[in-house]
Amino acid sequence: MEIAALLTSAGINISICIVLLSLYSVLRKQPANYCVYFGRRLVCGGARRYDPFWYERFVPSPSWLVKAWETSEDELLAAAGLDAVVFLRMVIFSIRIFFITAVVCIAFVLPVNYYGQPRVHKEIHLESSEVFTIENLKEGSKWLWVHCLALYIITSAACLLLYFEYRTIAKMRLGHITSSAPKPSQFTVLIRAIPWHPEQSYSDTLSKYFTNYYSSCYLSHQMVYHNGIIQRLLHDAERVCLSLKHVSPEISCKPSLTPCNFCGGPTATNSFHILSNEGDSVKGMELGELTVTTTEQERPAAFVFFKTRYDALVVSEVLQSSNPMLWVSDLAPEPHDVYWRNLNIPYRQLWIRRIATLVGAVAFMFVFLIPVTFIQGLTQLEQLSHAFPFLRGILKKKFINQVITGYLPSVILILFFYAVPPMMMQLNVFSSVRDIPAQLARAVPTQAGFFTTYCFTSGWASLACEIMQPMALIWNLAAKAISTNKDESYETLRFPYHTEIPRLLLFGLLGFTNSVIAPLILPFLLIYFFLAYLIYKNQILNVYITKYESGGKYWPIFHNTTIFSLILTQIIALGFFGLKLSTVASGFTIPLILLTLLFSEYCRHKFAPIFHKHPAQVLIDMDRADEMTGKMEELHKKLHSVYSQIPLHLQKSSSNGESSTPFANQELPDPEKLKPEEGDAIAKELWGFQGNESGQEHDTKSCPSASSPEHLTPKMIELHKRN
Amino acid sequence: MEIAALLTSAGINISICIVLLSLYSVLRKQPANYCVYFGRRLVCGGARRYDPFWYERFVPSPSWLVKAWETSEDELLAAAGLDAVVFLRMVIFSIRIFFITAVVCIAFVLPVNYYGQPRVHKEIHLESSEVFTIENLKEGSKWLWVHCLALYIITSAACLLLYFEYRTIAKMRLGHITSSAPKPSQFTVLIRAIPWHPEQSYSDTLSKYFTNYYSSCYLSHQMVYHNGIIQRLLHDAERVCLSLKHVSPEISCKPSLTPCNFCGGPTATNSFHILSNEGDSVKGMELGELTVTTTEQERPAAFVFFKTRYDALVVSEVLQSSNPMLWVSDLAPEPHDVYWRNLNIPYRQLWIRRIATLVGAVAFMFVFLIPVTFIQGLTQLEQLSHAFPFLRGILKKKFINQVITGYLPSVILILFFYAVPPMMMQLNVFSSVRDIPAQLARAVPTQAGFFTTYCFTSGWASLACEIMQPMALIWNLAAKAISTNKDESYETLRFPYHTEIPRLLLFGLLGFTNSVIAPLILPFLLIYFFLAYLIYKNQILNVYITKYESGGKYWPIFHNTTIFSLILTQIIALGFFGLKLSTVASGFTIPLILLTLLFSEYCRHKFAPIFHKHPAQVLIDMDRADEMTGKMEELHKKLHSVYSQIPLHLQKSSSNGESSTPFANQELPDPEKLKPEEGDAIAKELWGFQGNESGQEHDTKSCPSASSPEHLTPKMIELHKRN
Repeated sequence: MEIAALLTSAGINISICIVLLSLYSVLRKQPANYCVYFGRRLVCGGARRYDPFWYERFVPSPSWLVKAWETSEDELLAAAGLDAVVFLRMVIFSIRIFFITAVVCIAFVLPVNYYGQPRVHKEIHLESSEVFTIENLKEGSKWLWVHCLALYIITSAACLLLYFEYRTIAKMRLGHITSSAPKPSQFTVLIRAIPWHPEQSYSDTLSKYFTNYYSSCYLSHQMVYHNGIIQRLLHDAERVCLSLKHVSPEISCKPSLTPCNFCGGPTATNSFHILSNEGDSVKGMELGELTVTTTEQERPAAFVFFKTRYDALVVSEVLQSSNPMLWVSDLAPEPHDVYWRNLNIPYRQLWIRRIATLVGAVAFMFVFLIPVTFIQGLTQLEQLSHAFPFLRGILKKKFINQVITGYLPSVILILFFYAVPPMMMQLNVFSSVRDIPAQLARAVPTQAGFFTTYCFTSGWASLACEIMQPMALIWNLAAKAISTNKDESYETLRFPYHTEIPRLLLFGLLGFTNSVIAPLILPFLLIYFFLAYLIYKNQILNVYITKYESGGKYWPIFHNTTIFSLILTQIIALGFFGLKLSTVASGFTIPLILLTLLFSEYCRHKFAPIFHKHPAQVLIDMDRADEMTGKMEELHKKLHSVYSQIPLHLQKSSSNGESSTPFANQELPDPEKLKPEEGDAIAKELWGFQGNESGQEHDTKSCPSASSPEHLTPKMIELHKRN
Repeated sequence: MEIAALLTSAGINISICIVLLSLYSVLRKQPANYCVYFGRRLVCGGARRYDPFWYERFVPSPSWLVKAWETSEDELLAAAGLDAVVFLRMVIFSIRIFFITAVVCIAFVLPVNYYGQPRVHKEIHLESSEVFTIENLKEGSKWLWVHCLALYIITSAACLLLYFEYRTIAKMRLGHITSSAPKPSQFTVLIRAIPWHPEQSYSDTLSKYFTNYYSSCYLSHQMVYHNGIIQRLLHDAERVCLSLKHVSPEISCKPSLTPCNFCGGPTATNSFHILSNEGDSVKGMELGELTVTTTEQERPAAFVFFKTRYDALVVSEVLQSSNPMLWVSDLAPEPHDVYWRNLNIPYRQLWIRRIATLVGAVAFMFVFLIPVTFIQGLTQLEQLSHAFPFLRGILKKKFINQVITGYLPSVILILFFYAVPPMMMQLNVFSSVRDIPAQLARAVPTQAGFFTTYCFTSGWASLACEIMQPMALIWNLAAKAISTNKDESYETLRFPYHTEIPRLLLFGLLGFTNSVIAPLILPFLLIYFFLAYLIYKNQILNVYITKYESGGKYWPIFHNTTIFSLILTQIIALGFFGLKLSTVASGFTIPLILLTLLFSEYCRHKFAPIFHKHPAQVLIDMDRADEMTGKMEELHKKLHSVYSQIPLHLQKSSSNGESSTPFANQELPDPEKLKPEEGDAIAKELWGFQGNESGQEHDTKSCPSASSPEHLTPKMIELHKRN
């Protein structure tokens, strides 16, 4: 690929990015799009300006960039939690290391590559990009020590940065554990595979076991029930609610948000008041029946509650029974993370399901190999004209030639397989174990051009896509056009760590592997990371809410993958030094690989355990502090209700026949549950509950939706009866 | 290799074995060799006949075979512990599976191979052994389904047998844990990397930590001291004792063996009485000094004692501190297994030492490749005559030809590298990942002859060697000839699991991989396993003592390696079916591999945890039983003294100035310590202690040794002072 083609591609992408970012800076200021671009703020009650005569809102401005830049880490931690901070630290780490890498490689490696062979150089823009790669060096070149030295500098810098980051994040994680409000999950152990005794229920077996062996610390437990009945009931109820909702959009009762006692977050009260007052008698009768049915359908799983965090930790870590397939214990997930349907699966099936998932994932990966190989071929122009003979005429034109070879293949790749790591295209060329370094060394520089354009299309474009949120925007517009209703209910999204961290890691891998081989990619990558920093920060602050908080557990993944990238880089360089017949450079690379492995092992010993286990010392101290302040007893009282499969008010009303406001005590720590949709409170409550149960993310956009229902209660339950 | 050559080799080996076994049956009856062939019995006080006119002792007899055969598993368990039972169960498993394999392969696979190509067969003994391998089949043969079916039968039988064995051994292990006498190690946790505080000693830091966080279950602790001083003192004392011993062999005081209170084993009393009465005053003064010095030299490691087994288990399994490199906890080893010198190593060095060991082992393995490749070449006669031109004349003679090709190469291999697994010779032919099955398939049958002779030389000969104990015998004879002293002190050996289990596994691997490919090896292997059963059983009953007891932990290693062998067999067969162009057989082999992997995973979930962790339920029940019977308090009192780096009597006399018989209370659970050498009691005691400390096996044979010393005490300590 010529430099001109590369620059064409870069130009196209930069223009697209500028246009999209400008468009974003306008669109975000339109009140109609607030629910797309400020989902998080709306939930958290951030102020927003709504002035129809404020015409500046049609002018692009970089104010959001400034704001994203200025937000400090502490503000981010307070607003979005530790995971968001850790994610942005990954981006910052990438910026730092690739800044160092770019400086070293462009200042020293690039000139060595460029003047690697004695020949007449064309004008820069007519040069092939391969002139800048290590391939341009002649065999046995004495200048390979520059590459070797650069490799040492990059590895040392990366290891140092990784070490300090790991240390800081480990401290942050400990701070997160100690400073966080008491969580019910810390006191709870999920027990699976309770043995079956024909003469007693699972619940009795469990309580006998724990009162026998853990009498000093066992509090109580909450069984898991077969969710068939509950599931069906909830599904029907939701359907009825929705149908009622669309019939009569008159009455609306806004919920008032008051802080929850337990988690400190806001909770809904008024709406549920109305409901429980209205549907009291019928529901009481109906759900009494439900309770009887479900207790008969106990599953061999339960949440067991303990007096202190330390007790729960001990029970979860110790092998309970002499049959390892019985009394399997694990620390419980947070109540709103419980995936009830999974708890129905017998424990003895779990391992085989995990294996099936793994096999499926591997098979799926290999299916991708076929189209990837085809697209890889497109980067070679001859192969392209061979594949599509009708293109031959067009391809002779210079500009089109540049566009096609520089841009098209990666666009096709993106369109077809947005998430396929291009690493895999190397898989099918491996046939010899000993030649892997050499084969990689041959493959990487020839694909350097492709990787660069991949950085443009997948990297830059994905960032623009991320900030524009095109799907949400279109959905919002379409819904506005179709529906006449102007209500502002909306659903917020959670940050897609599962796609964004791998993307970051992939670009890190591309950066490291290309660094000494084809350093031309580095400036473009640096632009990507810098843009990523601003855009992700903006999105985390404005768009996404934090539902699941791992407490920084993503960092070890990032750390290990970065070490892997470094070692792969070294192996590829080793292969290259072998190809170029430089024994000195090869000889110096091998100790570098060993040192990097040693560093990895050191970090694994020094930091990794904190990310997998809770330190006893810390938990005991927390327990004592809570006992001193008297918080502990308060907590113990709540535990049982928090892990309830059947919402608390249903239980209470069915057992006590009371019609008071039981919801005032039940916390809903998840802001997602607090969507201020009007009226249909029970449907919403049931939906929210079922949503947790199904464990799926609510990524559907229903920004403008239909509104409030009529009186629900007796009719709805009648309908359910008929079903 | 011709069948005749194979039979020649077998004949030579069988004759050698018969001669050696007959010789053994005579030698074992000679009173002079009792200490070689009945070491265990002498220690345990078994009766022995000593009649100089009993001339039958010069006639070979198979009585020992009968006795070994008749001993039941329960007797073996009582006599030699669970590890010995598990080892013999490995042998029995091998006999069973290879009996099934031999029946299936010789009845069905061998005829298919033999008549695989339409040609005129010579007389059997002139046939090449390759005629009986799968190589003899023609390409695309329809008879390959026989091999595939045989593979299914072998795998199914192996998995079934493995499953039932694993289940039985898991039960035995649980029985071993629950039924065994209370062990100090169950109540003790080894804490390493105690943090350093400048204002207080390690001991204070430790006791503050545990009284703070584990006040309810913490009993006391025992620090580890810098062993330089103690080590030197003990070394000097031993040297002085030895020199005194050889000077004056007059006085002897036989120790009387009385059962120990703690472990139920015998303990020495009289000898130590004499010593402590005599050397009282001087020692008290001297060792008071020692105590002061050592407390100043505390190391950041300690044995911490807890009230119950469960408490110790919890502390050992939980991550203690927020810095994973501090307060590292592990269940303590048994007191006599403690390797004191290792406890001096700072914990932060340990991981790097482990890595260095691994790297060293790998490097060492690769060094072996060179000679192994050379020896492998010898099996081909042409290469042999090419390597040694002067042999060309001799090689034309038929018998010598047979001996050399059939016998010599493996003898050379044995002589040079007794313990090198021949698997490694395959390592250097791998160059392509995808072709590994095919390459293995090509390599195995051509090496089948070599493997068969390897089975004769390494397998049968090693068994004969094992039972003859030539080194011990020669040492015994030489010592008898040189020394005029007729004393019968001796040292017993521990069973060499570390060499014998790998050998068993290696022959299992050879058996499985050759089963469907070259089944001719199977009868010879079966003879090996059968002989191994009798000989090992005899040796365990008569020769070896049990010092370290893992409680059946060797079984998971055997299980996993057997699964590996099965899968390797299947991969090799897959390669062969590929080479012979049988897609049906290949297609049916792949699900077999997956099923075997699934089986392995199932066993890993179902049984493996019991071999790595102690079940809480079991430990709590044991604790309660001991509390009920009142044993617990008695135990608690002993813990501190058992894990003492400085022997108890030294401590007592130095601190209290008492001259009573402190040894009466100190148990020596190791029969090895009870060698009835006369007189030099303190040297023996010190030696036994230092022996534990250095952790080396006492494999030196000192059957007839010099005898009793004069008065030791004041002189010895004087001598030490001068050093």
